[in-house]
Amino acid sequence: MFAAESLVRTLINQGVEVCFTNPGTSEMHMVAALDRIEGMRSVLCLFEGVATGAADGYARMAGKPACTLLHLGPGVGNGLANLHNAQRGHAPVVNIVGDHARHHLKLDAPLTSDVEGVCRPMSRWVGTVREPSEVSTMAVEAVRQAYGPARGVASLILPADCAWSDAEPDVLPAIEPPAAIPVPADTVAEIADALKAAKAPVILLGNDACLDTGLEAAGRIAEATGAKLFMDTFVPRIARGHGRVSPKRLAYFGEQALEELAGTDLLVIAGSKPPVAFFAYPDQPGELTPPGARAVTLGDASSDIQEALVSLAAQFPDAPAPKLSKLSQAPKLFPDELLNPGYVGISLLRHMPEDSVICDDATTSGMGVFPWIEHGPRHDWLCLTGGAIGSGMPQAVGAAMACPDRQVFALCGDGAAAYTLQALWTQAREKQNIVNVVFANHSYLVLNVELARVGAGEPGPAAQQMLSLDNPKMDWVKLAEGFGVPARRAATAGEFDEALQAALAEGGPQLIVAEI
Amino acid sequence: MFAAESLVRTLINQGVEVCFTNPGTSEMHMVAALDRIEGMRSVLCLFEGVATGAADGYARMAGKPACTLLHLGPGVGNGLANLHNAQRGHAPVVNIVGDHARHHLKLDAPLTSDVEGVCRPMSRWVGTVREPSEVSTMAVEAVRQAYGPARGVASLILPADCAWSDAEPDVLPAIEPPAAIPVPADTVAEIADALKAAKAPVILLGNDACLDTGLEAAGRIAEATGAKLFMDTFVPRIARGHGRVSPKRLAYFGEQALEELAGTDLLVIAGSKPPVAFFAYPDQPGELTPPGARAVTLGDASSDIQEALVSLAAQFPDAPAPKLSKLSQAPKLFPDELLNPGYVGISLLRHMPEDSVICDDATTSGMGVFPWIEHGPRHDWLCLTGGAIGSGMPQAVGAAMACPDRQVFALCGDGAAAYTLQALWTQAREKQNIVNVVFANHSYLVLNVELARVGAGEPGPAAQQMLSLDNPKMDWVKLAEGFGVPARRAATAGEFDEALQAALAEGGPQLIVAEI
Repeated sequence: MFAAESLVRTLINQGVEVCFTNPGTSEMHMVAALDRIEGMRSVLCLFEGVATGAADGYARMAGKPACTLLHLGPGVGNGLANLHNAQRGHAPVVNIVGDHARHHLKLDAPLTSDVEGVCRPMSRWVGTVREPSEVSTMAVEAVRQAYGPARGVASLILPADCAWSDAEPDVLPAIEPPAAIPVPADTVAEIADALKAAKAPVILLGNDACLDTGLEAAGRIAEATGAKLFMDTFVPRIARGHGRVSPKRLAYFGEQALEELAGTDLLVIAGSKPPVAFFAYPDQPGELTPPGARAVTLGDASSDIQEALVSLAAQFPDAPAPKLSKLSQAPKLFPDELLNPGYVGISLLRHMPEDSVICDDATTSGMGVFPWIEHGPRHDWLCLTGGAIGSGMPQAVGAAMACPDRQVFALCGDGAAAYTLQALWTQAREKQNIVNVVFANHSYLVLNVELARVGAGEPGPAAQQMLSLDNPKMDWVKLAEGFGVPARRAATAGEFDEALQAALAEGGPQLIVAEI
Repeated sequence: MFAAESLVRTLINQGVEVCFTNPGTSEMHMVAALDRIEGMRSVLCLFEGVATGAADGYARMAGKPACTLLHLGPGVGNGLANLHNAQRGHAPVVNIVGDHARHHLKLDAPLTSDVEGVCRPMSRWVGTVREPSEVSTMAVEAVRQAYGPARGVASLILPADCAWSDAEPDVLPAIEPPAAIPVPADTVAEIADALKAAKAPVILLGNDACLDTGLEAAGRIAEATGAKLFMDTFVPRIARGHGRVSPKRLAYFGEQALEELAGTDLLVIAGSKPPVAFFAYPDQPGELTPPGARAVTLGDASSDIQEALVSLAAQFPDAPAPKLSKLSQAPKLFPDELLNPGYVGISLLRHMPEDSVICDDATTSGMGVFPWIEHGPRHDWLCLTGGAIGSGMPQAVGAAMACPDRQVFALCGDGAAAYTLQALWTQAREKQNIVNVVFANHSYLVLNVELARVGAGEPGPAAQQMLSLDNPKMDWVKLAEGFGVPARRAATAGEFDEALQAALAEGGPQLIVAEI
């Protein structure tokens, strides 16, 4: 057995079942190991940003890590943006990176780089295998580190000679991965008291607090205390739709968020940290805890926040049942109206299967879809946690791999979709049930808004050109078909509704261009 | 004037004329500055890897830096692979990266990351603006650092508030950028003596030694001493075609390179360093200086190697004129033969305009084209210096921007082309005369070879699937058209020859799928 084989076998023992790969020469023994060993599914991606985004989406839905297999420093570089999103979304990822053989590094061959240095900014842990005999131990440590707490990206660097060595290293058995940190009973009791005393409390839910158990408990607390429930603007995953407690989503722009929170006297942070603006603007506050409010933290991303919310709810034994979303009738569709994100939301409400998964990489348009399906079929909504666009289609690959029986949607701005469109090829190769919706506004729309907001003055023609994608217009039907994914175009509410029904009926990967 | 404007004006004063951009909110004041100021051309790219690859191609052809404009850590991440190629090719690049406002960084908003950390592995210099008043000084320093010596990537990080400050910072005048380091006369004399004494000398040319003056001088030295001329396997740019001295390209695989160099007693390194294998293999040497040869260095990448070669040639005043490539008649084309890289080379020999520029990102196929045009029209051939695939189409964008009157070609493997195909959109937007040739072998062909070479055993079906791109086959005609570039398909020598003629006659960006 060569060392790469013991690495793969050890990972399988730890419950790692999927590897999103884009290998090169220095990873050939890993490829051979993946080839020989049953129990690890290899999913080839045409670009590393697809592999890392898929690992992110997989982790969010499976609740456990997949691994990647990337090629040297430039390969990690290509994957960094989606590792950033995973890290910010506390998605556990075991990021495996091949490096040159140890004796080859000193020769400074063309592909030599500081692989640890490339990994570090987007990893919570980085480890390099120094000896073939370390391979299994390091693999276990990488899995452990991916679980945190808080969970995130663990990068394991494997020199080629450590992979190809035919020493007989151990295949280590499973360990119990680290669990989230329990919130002390005192903290729960103090926050219960604070809630009882508060006049206008708000509970801000982030990370795991937006999963079923956390939401349900938060709903009970809200009923008992009159607290308003908010969720972070970008959470890794929120369970939504009928039968669920539905917090209000904190507005993206700071001044709007402050307005929403105005008058709050107690801000309870559950699974997250006090809210801040996404970007800085001249003469705008960055901290969004409203003046006059006291912020108290029940738990952060490393906490067992669902259990903490259950304990907190238990402090209010007489709380009435929480308010739940109810399946509502879809509003009337005006088929000849020009399409907008709201109509996309209405069509999802009408046709989306129960337990769909929605990967949102559509900055402005995603916010327009979101409210419409609050009272729709049950679904999980995955946000752009790190703000690095190009997440949607890759994340959908991973989500579909984790949940093959659920319908997956990727909602993408056209600017974002252009970052990682190679994901469509893997969707086609793996025949995944993913409907990709590309909102074609032919511009970096959010940046047109931002240009005005930062006070940079009136944009002239050169600035407008720099934010416009209309010269030439991308033809997303051709781009999708080029990667083997059938595609349709819709410019009206009716056309989109028909396209969505047809895409769902046909199954497999599909793309709809939403001309807005 | 806000600080971003003084940055742009200072860069223009330093001769920086082009900015390859993919901005975000934190760069809006740079966008506004680029909008208002004449003298800096902004070229929008749909992905950061296109922007950095274009800056690489521009620098190789213009001999001076362009700048980029990238968005925070994930934006640099997306651009790292082509920054690596630029850094390894000693192409001067001023890599400008926006960051959050200084007061916003401590809030750890979702897009916060260690931007310096992301830049460092692929930069020779990293600087962060700490105060708005520093902007112009830092811009001058970034340009200075990009010139080296040796030249490379200088990353300048600009916090948003340092860009938007309306302080009245200086616009600094031009400085003389650092020049390459002269080679001491003693070194030249010693190497002349060594060459006279050697029985079987080889001169290995790298970096600037492969430009006209260096090649011509090397040709004279070869005639005088009987030295064989080799070039590094991957050089940033080599001047080729009729009327030029043509060194032999050192083989990619180490054992072949060692065979080519066998019997050498003196290896003179001119503009490079002693040769090493691209990758390590079990039981293969990494150092390629042949046994029995003494390696001596005339100069490395930081040296004024062209001047050194001229001085060295002057030590042999009676040297006959160097041997030059002569325009040869193209070999007969067999139009019905199945296409292969050689036939692509023959068609280039037949139809390529004088002074074309060829950006080679076609690992296996590029090596097959290269020899055929040695005696063809004059051209510059740009190699994949850092080995990070996805360079070709972006580099072509930059080369065409630097040389608008020259025909540019991008030769890409289909695996490589899929990395950064978004470059096609910028080619269409800028109406650039670029013919993209995508060699569609529907596999990571080189990896199939490498899998065998590293001794990983016979590949099973899973390994074969991991190196195969045929399920589904990418449709490059649709992909090109989707980004606004007309495309043709060719499966025979005759079809390719016709497609190339048609593409050149039509002008503008074109793509030919070479089915091989």
